[in-house]
Amino acid sequence: MSERRFTHVLGVEEMALKLAELYGGNPEQVSLAALCHDYAKERPDEEMIALIKNQGFDLALLDYGNQIWHGILGAYLAKEELGVADEEVLQAIRLHTTGAKEMTLLDKIIYVADFIEPGRQFPGVEEARIVAFNNLDEAVAYETKQTLSHLIDQEVKIYPKTIETYNQWVVKN
Amino acid sequence: MSERRFTHVLGVEEMALKLAELYGGNPEQVSLAALCHDYAKERPDEEMIALIKNQGFDLALLDYGNQIWHGILGAYLAKEELGVADEEVLQAIRLHTTGAKEMTLLDKIIYVADFIEPGRQFPGVEEARIVAFNNLDEAVAYETKQTLSHLIDQEVKIYPKTIETYNQWVVKN
Repeated sequence: MSERRFTHVLGVEEMALKLAELYGGNPEQVSLAALCHDYAKERPDEEMIALIKNQGFDLALLDYGNQIWHGILGAYLAKEELGVADEEVLQAIRLHTTGAKEMTLLDKIIYVADFIEPGRQFPGVEEARIVAFNNLDEAVAYETKQTLSHLIDQEVKIYPKTIETYNQWVVKN
Repeated sequence: MSERRFTHVLGVEEMALKLAELYGGNPEQVSLAALCHDYAKERPDEEMIALIKNQGFDLALLDYGNQIWHGILGAYLAKEELGVADEEVLQAIRLHTTGAKEMTLLDKIIYVADFIEPGRQFPGVEEARIVAFNNLDEAVAYETKQTLSHLIDQEVKIYPKTIETYNQWVVKN
């Protein structure tokens, strides 16, 4: 992967390990998931499209792009090519971009660490870091709300699972 | 219905007829859909919940509230109680809150008129009116984007169909 991507991945691992220490996550699972989370991020679209069509993925994925594909197919490729067998690790890779209605501690750590790793610079990232070290569930909510607002502001297509994540974690019932 | 609701309904009819004149809609369908669009808006929740459970509606609706129910059940009640038989009119009632991926001219007129009727006062309503009299599809997009942003800002639960509307009308492919 590119130098820039590799630096990001190491940043996610560093941040994820800090969160794991605070919240009691398994550091070996956390490291493995963090190091593999963007495994499919730089694959060519044609390769991803072929995988979606030939490996039984939901064909509705074809309406989206690598931003949505790389987590779902990254889990598949980490298993097939790297031999990652831990289903909890694979799920954290699979969900790291969209989140999900139900998320394990590991899922939340990778989802949040990806958003706040030291190399991230965007309005609100400092606030997100403070929230993350105070309450992990609130960090999931903060990130989901901010991401969704940004997508709508930019008029980018929204993957329905992102709304499930929002309805579960952001909405106070 | 309440005085306030009745005034709103007449405002929607007035605005919808103006849009119909501009874009070539059928004024009789437009009037009927506008006058019936909030027919279920003031029904008690218990009555709506019973209808959802007993009349074969998607039980996932129970996770939402009258804001989502009143269009879908309003179409049902307009047919059952008022004898409205025109399926195009019923669809415009059904979709008026959430919009849909596919919308007819009548659906768009009711959806937009409900947002910009003369009694509406919110930041952006004047801009929405200008857009509506310039390009009806852009008005659908404007309203959908603004509504979704507002829901997220307020951390309100989002009905998945609203995202289908957004992906179709707001996102530029």
